[in-house]
Amino acid sequence: MPPPPPVVTVLASARGPRPPGLEPVARLATIRYALSAKSLARALTETEVLFIWNFRSASLRDVWPQARRLRWIHVASAGVDTILFPELASSSVILTNARGVFDQAIAEYVLGLVLAFAKGFWETLDLQRRRAWRHRETEHVRGQTALIVGAGAIGRAIGRLVRSAGMRVAGVARTARAFDPDLGRVVAVGDLGAVLGEADYVIIAAPLTSETRGLFGASAFARMKRTARLINVGRGAIVDEAALLGALRSKRIAGAALDVFSVEPLPTRHPLWDLPGVLVSPHMSGDFVGWAPALSALFVENYQRWRRGEPLLNVVDKALGYVPGAAGESNDGRRPP
Amino acid sequence: MPPPPPVVTVLASARGPRPPGLEPVARLATIRYALSAKSLARALTETEVLFIWNFRSASLRDVWPQARRLRWIHVASAGVDTILFPELASSSVILTNARGVFDQAIAEYVLGLVLAFAKGFWETLDLQRRRAWRHRETEHVRGQTALIVGAGAIGRAIGRLVRSAGMRVAGVARTARAFDPDLGRVVAVGDLGAVLGEADYVIIAAPLTSETRGLFGASAFARMKRTARLINVGRGAIVDEAALLGALRSKRIAGAALDVFSVEPLPTRHPLWDLPGVLVSPHMSGDFVGWAPALSALFVENYQRWRRGEPLLNVVDKALGYVPGAAGESNDGRRPP
Repeated sequence: MPPPPPVVTVLASARGPRPPGLEPVARLATIRYALSAKSLARALTETEVLFIWNFRSASLRDVWPQARRLRWIHVASAGVDTILFPELASSSVILTNARGVFDQAIAEYVLGLVLAFAKGFWETLDLQRRRAWRHRETEHVRGQTALIVGAGAIGRAIGRLVRSAGMRVAGVARTARAFDPDLGRVVAVGDLGAVLGEADYVIIAAPLTSETRGLFGASAFARMKRTARLINVGRGAIVDEAALLGALRSKRIAGAALDVFSVEPLPTRHPLWDLPGVLVSPHMSGDFVGWAPALSALFVENYQRWRRGEPLLNVVDKALGYVPGAAGESNDGRRPP
Repeated sequence: MPPPPPVVTVLASARGPRPPGLEPVARLATIRYALSAKSLARALTETEVLFIWNFRSASLRDVWPQARRLRWIHVASAGVDTILFPELASSSVILTNARGVFDQAIAEYVLGLVLAFAKGFWETLDLQRRRAWRHRETEHVRGQTALIVGAGAIGRAIGRLVRSAGMRVAGVARTARAFDPDLGRVVAVGDLGAVLGEADYVIIAAPLTSETRGLFGASAFARMKRTARLINVGRGAIVDEAALLGALRSKRIAGAALDVFSVEPLPTRHPLWDLPGVLVSPHMSGDFVGWAPALSALFVENYQRWRRGEPLLNVVDKALGYVPGAAGESNDGRRPP
């Protein structure tokens, strides 16, 4: 008698849709859906593979002692900060993520934000609402400097796109690189303060790790140009939001476009909602039409690799908290459709 | 006794600033300022060179019989539709314009508008004003098709930039071209209807001429995709605004970003101001910080060429209504600083 098929558990949300297109996995495994921490606890004892579709859920940690047969977790997000905890990090369970799926969408989103600032679109829309015809001068984006914090697949996609629009680009990564084909000069995160003053746009596209948490506080803002804008498409907690509020209110920096926050959804009473020069968007920069099938397809491909005993795509270094890329690697081949 | 220095008259606005940096001209000529039609009439009898700084003024036509000594007009705008009239067109007076100064700024503005549509920025800002956190999916710009109407310096700069952001590009010009390095396939304006249906973004960057006036009417909108957006940075009268209102209200097309209008400023009661899916901006797409010095510098350079008897830059073909470019010319070398 052949062994029973492995159990693949999908951690989804009771309210949201389930991942589409898992039929190829269903032919090779028993798929169970866990829609709550309680049902995850029940399913986990038999689970060999966990597909975390609801990547905002942090319930795995609470039920970790039940994960006796768990060998591999795939998470449908690029950041693994919500998922990763010390017991998982020190275990032999493999963690893979959705690196690559969001690169193009986020890069376009960031370039759009840069152009919206440079061309005064926010003010234009406010004036339009008042039927006010008020001519203003715009800024050239060409020749302005973008400092990209985070040299992973997303940071490099941003670098390529804003450079193609004529911007100068520099990068900040865990370790310095003499030359990166997408980011040019890359300085180590410890030298951030030395390069912040060159940037017209500081773009955060880093994972949330112990090294990046709170990286942007009052001392970082103090080193930025007064005309600089901050764009955060990484994780909210990389920025000290109280310090950012202070920097914006005191005109220490000129503006911010924030797609991520330390608490999401951003609380209704939070002062960032209506601070002049601030754009608030609801953690959507990477979520293009078709993202759900693309995220599923990546898991399906990885599952087929798993069954064939082949190396998995996007294995997270659990000590670093992200998928380490070869220096200078210009993308990981996982472009969205 | 040497001949008296030639009279250069600057037609400016009584309310607005005068052109900066004309000292090199002042050393070679007598500069007079005309701030009204009346003072233009007085100055014109002695004027050899007219620099139309207030390019919205149409007063030259009224005082044309006084232009007995006029040999050359330079206008500080790319479009000459306001300036050009039959008596000027049939005269021997040379007309030059500011072709090239606005290219980069307008191209960036257009790419910003495309990204703002694709990423839902207008809705994001409206939601922010209500402190509403509402996640939405965005569109990839890469792979979408931009049809650029107008294959002059501005149209080609737009083509280069949106192509570098991953869009497919096609062009519409007075005459077809098998291949344009910036626009790819270029069809003749008479074949516009055959290609409109391919475009996700229809971008008008053409001069206003007898061929383009009213080019976009109900029949053009009927051929566009229902998901298409119209961007007009050319001239308002190229679009039949009543037909556009109808196409937008009936959802025949998905949206429009308009920087130019048949009447400017757009009248306060005009329904375009608050139609959903429409962005109204006050004819500013080309007006980057530094545009005034750049416009002056171009006139100064042309004046020096004039005094040396050299060919002038940007000579308008007064029958066509624009500066004819060599097919495939990728720019005219007059990039703004």
